[in-house]
Amino acid sequence: MYQDFDEEDRGGSTRARVSALRRALKARNLNGFLVPHGDEHSAGPEWLSWLTGFTGSAGTAIVLEAGAALFVDGRYTLQARDQAEASLFEVLVTPEAKVSQWIVTKLPKGSVLGYDPKLHTVREIERLNETVGKAGITLEVVAANPIDRLWKKRPAALSGPIVPHGMEFAGERPEDKIAKLQATLVADKADALLLTQLDSIAWLFNIRGGDVRHAPVPDGFAIVPAKGRPTLFVDPAKAGSNVRGHLEDFVDIAPPSAREAKFAELGQAGAGVRLDPETAPIRFAHALKEAGAKIVPGSDPCTLPKAIKNATEIAGARSAHLRDGMALARFLAWLDDHVGSGRLDEVRAAMKLEAVRRETGQLKDISFDTISAVGPNGAIVHYRPTNKGKLPLKGNTLYLIDSGGQYPDGTTDVTRTIAIGSPTKEMRHHYTLVLKGHIAIASARFPKGTRGQDLDPLARQPLWQEGLDYDHGTGHGVGSYLYVHEGPQRLSKLGSVVLEPGMVLSNEPGLYREGEYGIRLENLVLVTPPAPIEGGSREMLGFETLTLVPFDRRLIDASMLTREEKAWLDAYHADVRRKIEPLLKSDDRPWLRHATAPIR
Amino acid sequence: MYQDFDEEDRGGSTRARVSALRRALKARNLNGFLVPHGDEHSAGPEWLSWLTGFTGSAGTAIVLEAGAALFVDGRYTLQARDQAEASLFEVLVTPEAKVSQWIVTKLPKGSVLGYDPKLHTVREIERLNETVGKAGITLEVVAANPIDRLWKKRPAALSGPIVPHGMEFAGERPEDKIAKLQATLVADKADALLLTQLDSIAWLFNIRGGDVRHAPVPDGFAIVPAKGRPTLFVDPAKAGSNVRGHLEDFVDIAPPSAREAKFAELGQAGAGVRLDPETAPIRFAHALKEAGAKIVPGSDPCTLPKAIKNATEIAGARSAHLRDGMALARFLAWLDDHVGSGRLDEVRAAMKLEAVRRETGQLKDISFDTISAVGPNGAIVHYRPTNKGKLPLKGNTLYLIDSGGQYPDGTTDVTRTIAIGSPTKEMRHHYTLVLKGHIAIASARFPKGTRGQDLDPLARQPLWQEGLDYDHGTGHGVGSYLYVHEGPQRLSKLGSVVLEPGMVLSNEPGLYREGEYGIRLENLVLVTPPAPIEGGSREMLGFETLTLVPFDRRLIDASMLTREEKAWLDAYHADVRRKIEPLLKSDDRPWLRHATAPIR
Repeated sequence: MYQDFDEEDRGGSTRARVSALRRALKARNLNGFLVPHGDEHSAGPEWLSWLTGFTGSAGTAIVLEAGAALFVDGRYTLQARDQAEASLFEVLVTPEAKVSQWIVTKLPKGSVLGYDPKLHTVREIERLNETVGKAGITLEVVAANPIDRLWKKRPAALSGPIVPHGMEFAGERPEDKIAKLQATLVADKADALLLTQLDSIAWLFNIRGGDVRHAPVPDGFAIVPAKGRPTLFVDPAKAGSNVRGHLEDFVDIAPPSAREAKFAELGQAGAGVRLDPETAPIRFAHALKEAGAKIVPGSDPCTLPKAIKNATEIAGARSAHLRDGMALARFLAWLDDHVGSGRLDEVRAAMKLEAVRRETGQLKDISFDTISAVGPNGAIVHYRPTNKGKLPLKGNTLYLIDSGGQYPDGTTDVTRTIAIGSPTKEMRHHYTLVLKGHIAIASARFPKGTRGQDLDPLARQPLWQEGLDYDHGTGHGVGSYLYVHEGPQRLSKLGSVVLEPGMVLSNEPGLYREGEYGIRLENLVLVTPPAPIEGGSREMLGFETLTLVPFDRRLIDASMLTREEKAWLDAYHADVRRKIEPLLKSDDRPWLRHATAPIR
Repeated sequence: MYQDFDEEDRGGSTRARVSALRRALKARNLNGFLVPHGDEHSAGPEWLSWLTGFTGSAGTAIVLEAGAALFVDGRYTLQARDQAEASLFEVLVTPEAKVSQWIVTKLPKGSVLGYDPKLHTVREIERLNETVGKAGITLEVVAANPIDRLWKKRPAALSGPIVPHGMEFAGERPEDKIAKLQATLVADKADALLLTQLDSIAWLFNIRGGDVRHAPVPDGFAIVPAKGRPTLFVDPAKAGSNVRGHLEDFVDIAPPSAREAKFAELGQAGAGVRLDPETAPIRFAHALKEAGAKIVPGSDPCTLPKAIKNATEIAGARSAHLRDGMALARFLAWLDDHVGSGRLDEVRAAMKLEAVRRETGQLKDISFDTISAVGPNGAIVHYRPTNKGKLPLKGNTLYLIDSGGQYPDGTTDVTRTIAIGSPTKEMRHHYTLVLKGHIAIASARFPKGTRGQDLDPLARQPLWQEGLDYDHGTGHGVGSYLYVHEGPQRLSKLGSVVLEPGMVLSNEPGLYREGEYGIRLENLVLVTPPAPIEGGSREMLGFETLTLVPFDRRLIDASMLTREEKAWLDAYHADVRRKIEPLLKSDDRPWLRHATAPIR
């Protein structure tokens, strides 16, 4: 199994761990320490979960001599309050609560706050320093993270080989990507580029790796000079002969320990090195400055071309979704068949789903830990089922399953909410409101220049009308056999990036009733090129829905849908049937035909 | 009449005027000159219209030794190309085209470009200088505007007395407004505030004036110290004894010529003077610096409290809209009664509308020149009818009328599009699409923190679906017996200001078919406070529609409306009938009853 349903044994209580950290801080004359979720690319250990018990995918803790706080975003409010001990950690919700403000109110002038320079970006520390520096608090680099020594039973870091990502999936040669990148460096008058985002590195060199959970990226970093050959810094043991043959055409391989010499070389040449302050760990900026290089702040130039999928990647995404849709249909048919026994539970269902995905023969990994959540667990936006806490699939409630696969041709991410027993009228009402929001995005047309933030409210309007809302974005970017969360595009209040043809995003409005149930309906969509519309005078972009999985018709109140919404839904279901039925064994076809029948 | 339908005689051709300006520039060793629309608050002459012939309300021209350009926004593309001579002026549309970029491509390094420091804000010149300065072009202050001497037949500046704006309309005492303002100055560590926006001055001191066309504001500026009495700099001749009695409780009056002494006093004290770089003419910044004062850049602190109407202003807005709705009903009934004769034209209709508004006995002015536009003229977003160019109201077409009144209790702004003869199926289709967008805004509910840009796309989605759009914002803020366009709130892609209860905005989606017809449907709306919704879990804000005028039922294709849209429309018409019918003479009541009957 790619997913582990046991709770990790951290050794001792969180109380004991917080106390041990406080002793370590005292020994170093620190008044506090910053503990982020993990390192810059989730390749390392989950410091935050060790310290606080909170297992969500994002957050920051601060431990002071007296008092400690855990900052999470709106998705994780419930989970953090549930998992972190209230007597140890004050749980605060960003962006309303601000880490810097909290520090300033808690620490007196002259205090020293430590941080690990591997775990914080340049901008994070800069921004923090703007506020805390004014208040006379010093931020101090702590190169040897005290938690490193305290965490005895630390799980071993993942480590997988680097493999070539073939042209049949990537669609563009690394030589060509590098040449375009170097042209922008020349234009921007930068002598070199430091790349630290693992998916940018994987994308640029057409490689994949196995150093991060559920994401096929290699750990490392790279230097791309404005002219000449780039250098890829990775553990040489991970680069076998098959990938060396691929790489040696356009990049030199060096061990991470060769960094110092390379930076010294850049420093001696007085080079201007472009680095993305939003994503690069500050240790790189410190090292470059020490070596005498000039830092040229600028966004990671791989981000946008990586987000705009080429024709090969788009074809791959469609193939991956056919395969994934077939697996989901098999899973949902099995679920309907077996749920009556009352013996299914959240873990068993997630295991079955992973099994049917594996049976495709193409699954490289799941794209994240499956959220398999019955009733009230569905209201915990990023719930993860465990053998200890799992709920059975029974009663009259809703079951939310959010999952995805990593296939060589594409990454998937899909959420369905399924009726268990006899759903109430209110459940159907709420489900249909979320579906209306989903359809508003799926069927939207929009002119060139439209940003994600311009579309986000379309998904919320049906909920807003009834005094409801959800505390997460409507959609995130998705990589091509890379991270399941990828920037820069997003459908959210913060989505200021213009949507370009070829971008892939999730469309996932939801509704969460604390203590009762959660609803989320998620498909991936592809931004389509500007096209004329009959009778219109301007070309419009739109979305092609990639995900091919029926919505649960038992939960749809057709009287709440407009004519256009019904037409979209029936056309979508007809498309799912047409594409998925031929891929199914005859056993599962009746289920699919029923699940995709027109809405009354 | 408040509106003038004759074209002003500028004397000579635009060609001759441009040539004369070029000679004047040459005599001063300038390679070019910037000509904005007017001065900082439209109180002065319309330089742009004199120079270019373009009569729109916003734009900038640049005249070089060879070549000249006229920059306008999307609303004015057609009008500018129509009015400005193509052989003299290249017409460019902002924000795609940029003034600074154009200058840099046209002028060589070492060139000198002149500007009048009365007519440009601090930020305008700063921003321009960022680009042109880098290209080695110098911006030079030209205190004596050469157009001043060239424009012989210049219309006299408007000049009206300053009058008190009573508490029954303002709802808050100037003493209290000043005290709050001074508290923010103390908190922001500014020693004084320079106010240059005329409506901010009128709002702060509860006064109105008569120095700007169609806006009841006095010309002048003010200094508000962090402690002590403010000084209002206005022509003493305009401040009669009745207003002096009102003002002397809280403000000193000084002539504009006293500025130098006051600034010198601030300079000697080393005072930090807050000034809004986005709105203050740069001449004030120059003068303060010369006097030795420090400039503290910061937005005009009157803007937000002025935009958030208090209970008295809200009650006033409702009264003004009842009165204005009655006048519009009389006008529209008259129009339907007389249009069959074929003898009505754009000017006569606009005159009739002004007449019925005057008959209320409360009209102080119209709030802008009425846009009275038949057929293709309706596609010119800010068309102004003239005796020379007017079209008759006949044929089978659409008639667009956009107008407003200045009443002591409120400012109105309303647009209706009316069927002339037998409208085509396409006209009804387009009208109904615009109406759907209008209803989407009118009926929107939204959570705290929602910005205007979050709602703007709701108005466009019905048009986008059919490959259509409009090139202006969906709504602007409106003052309380002040400017009909008031910031900071707006419904537009650029509307980043959070909507607060008490703000008044226009809701005016449109559709323009060049050479055929234009459609715009505009009501003013008031942001309502957060309120619970039955069955919901979060309080939502919304809009109360203030404008009370029927939509033309002959242009509505009811089959295109959802159940909810029909319900909104019928409820709106029932509200209009209930409130307006009692105010009408019995002659006009049958028209209103018919115009507000339920939609089939």
